[in-house]
Amino acid sequence: MSEQRWLPPIYWDGDAVAIVDQRVLPHKEKTLRCTSPRQVVTAIKNMAIRGAPAVGIAGAMALSLGASSMKAADTQTFKRKFVRLCRQVRTARPTGNNLGWAVEKVYSVVVENPGADVPELIELIRRRVDEILAEDVAANVAIGNHGKEVIPCGARVLTYCNAGALATGDYGTAVGVIRAAFAADPSVQVYACETRPFLQGARLTAYELAQAGIPVTVITDNSVGSLMKQGAIDVVVVGADRIAANGDTANKIGTYTVAVLARTHDIPFYVAAPRSTIDPTLPDGDGIPIEQRDPKEVTHFHGRPVTPADVPALNPAFDVTPHRYITGIITEVGILKKPFGKAVRKAMEL
Amino acid sequence: MSEQRWLPPIYWDGDAVAIVDQRVLPHKEKTLRCTSPRQVVTAIKNMAIRGAPAVGIAGAMALSLGASSMKAADTQTFKRKFVRLCRQVRTARPTGNNLGWAVEKVYSVVVENPGADVPELIELIRRRVDEILAEDVAANVAIGNHGKEVIPCGARVLTYCNAGALATGDYGTAVGVIRAAFAADPSVQVYACETRPFLQGARLTAYELAQAGIPVTVITDNSVGSLMKQGAIDVVVVGADRIAANGDTANKIGTYTVAVLARTHDIPFYVAAPRSTIDPTLPDGDGIPIEQRDPKEVTHFHGRPVTPADVPALNPAFDVTPHRYITGIITEVGILKKPFGKAVRKAMEL
Repeated sequence: MSEQRWLPPIYWDGDAVAIVDQRVLPHKEKTLRCTSPRQVVTAIKNMAIRGAPAVGIAGAMALSLGASSMKAADTQTFKRKFVRLCRQVRTARPTGNNLGWAVEKVYSVVVENPGADVPELIELIRRRVDEILAEDVAANVAIGNHGKEVIPCGARVLTYCNAGALATGDYGTAVGVIRAAFAADPSVQVYACETRPFLQGARLTAYELAQAGIPVTVITDNSVGSLMKQGAIDVVVVGADRIAANGDTANKIGTYTVAVLARTHDIPFYVAAPRSTIDPTLPDGDGIPIEQRDPKEVTHFHGRPVTPADVPALNPAFDVTPHRYITGIITEVGILKKPFGKAVRKAMEL
Repeated sequence: MSEQRWLPPIYWDGDAVAIVDQRVLPHKEKTLRCTSPRQVVTAIKNMAIRGAPAVGIAGAMALSLGASSMKAADTQTFKRKFVRLCRQVRTARPTGNNLGWAVEKVYSVVVENPGADVPELIELIRRRVDEILAEDVAANVAIGNHGKEVIPCGARVLTYCNAGALATGDYGTAVGVIRAAFAADPSVQVYACETRPFLQGARLTAYELAQAGIPVTVITDNSVGSLMKQGAIDVVVVGADRIAANGDTANKIGTYTVAVLARTHDIPFYVAAPRSTIDPTLPDGDGIPIEQRDPKEVTHFHGRPVTPADVPALNPAFDVTPHRYITGIITEVGILKKPFGKAVRKAMEL
């Protein structure tokens, strides 16, 4: 029996897009069958699917779904409608880079094939989307292979949120590094931060690692400092939602806190992400848009209120870790090191 | 109508000890009526009452309750049984200093009154317990008065866990400082960290501050770093469970992380606590026992599991913040400053 015992987070189910509903994992395995781009966009917005690379793939599949069912008598009409669809899909969530990158990559099919008719465009778009998915999985495996080199023998690895198979096409970025490290050294073990408020660590990372037979212990986000002070963490590996040209990295809210703690305790702090997460148009992290989500995700749990009714809450979904806190950025083309500006430029040219 | 709209967390209800059940606040106001010391000890263990000073008071009241109903024909029997009761009560929770301090203070009644008969001892014990309660409230008001001086005009104050009326006899330590600062300057506002897993911040601090009309916003513990980086926090005030002779401070898990972040962002970090929290017998924080609680408090929410069933979790209830991260310790006799060793010694001699 292979290590992989679950379906990938998103896949074609005939002509529909099947999305594993990550809001109810690990206790329910429910799949959403999306037959319209709007349904996929809703699944992105309400976090049935999340994780920047997975959201990029979902966006791409939404475009293919939309293209196939588009009522267009001629190429001009098709293109006009498709541009509008691209615009709708790319704004589903603002912080992750991969969604805009994937939409751009799918849209370029139309630009690159001026002579194609509508059925040809639909076919070419579908092929491009399948390439994006396959390349993401391949990138994650390559990230794992590069990344395993920075995981010391017997390491106790801290990871944050879920940068696993569920956050990508499959395999995972940070979790991919852990998978590869564990395959080479079964004494590797993991601390997964629960990651409030959506609990991606407690629910999703714990689930994936347990499925893969990798020892994992869940901790509250607020116990990271204490564990590090006790010398219980050897290395940190996290994912990313958007990386600026200078290496500044947006990731799940709380990542910056973990990075500061890692620096204070002299623990290496790695970001693992495919190049589709890198936004070379942004000079630094100040320009990364930070999504503010509904405070109810903080104030309520399974629909039940936690806080007093009249007290407000903040719910920023991401924060930015300045590049100076990052030891290395593990990509599919190798580990980028300081100075990140130069390394990022070089990686994007490959 | 006075600011105080709720009952104190613990009080005499005739011959019983009434404890406001903090596990169900703010949505239910339920009071436990304890008629035996064992019931009080259970309420301490299961966190129906929590907060080091409140736990100390509860322990003291449990002793008075036990003394009153003790079957003892003579003083010798009474003393022997009372020593045993003291031992049971003081081990209810290990980290906070105030419980052991209060038990010691009540027990000393027996030592100081060798000629008293049983009814006299019972009466003297009850009087001592009432003194402990009254002195704690007075200490908190004094802490508020000293502490308000370190809260800048219009400050955005970050506090952690609940160091409020509910954690003490009344008024609160860190929350007492906030109350006093707000009374002097109504432009003061508060960020309350939700404080996983028991959510004392989201449930209790938010409740108390809202009741007092003090603007409060709940944030997840993992968003502290991001808020500080944005310049949104001016000062941190937290409570304490045990303070060693050198100023090292045990407080709710996550306090150390907040202290590291405050240092990184050059934000003053204050601890507010009565002298009953200081343990002059411990040279530093290494000797403070850290309670490990049931992992179910992390893995479950309202009885429903969050994590996969087979994944372990850690649930340390406290961490230790080294004195070098602390700007000052606000006590009822003034604000202790560095070097803390000398300041603590002097404060304990007053």
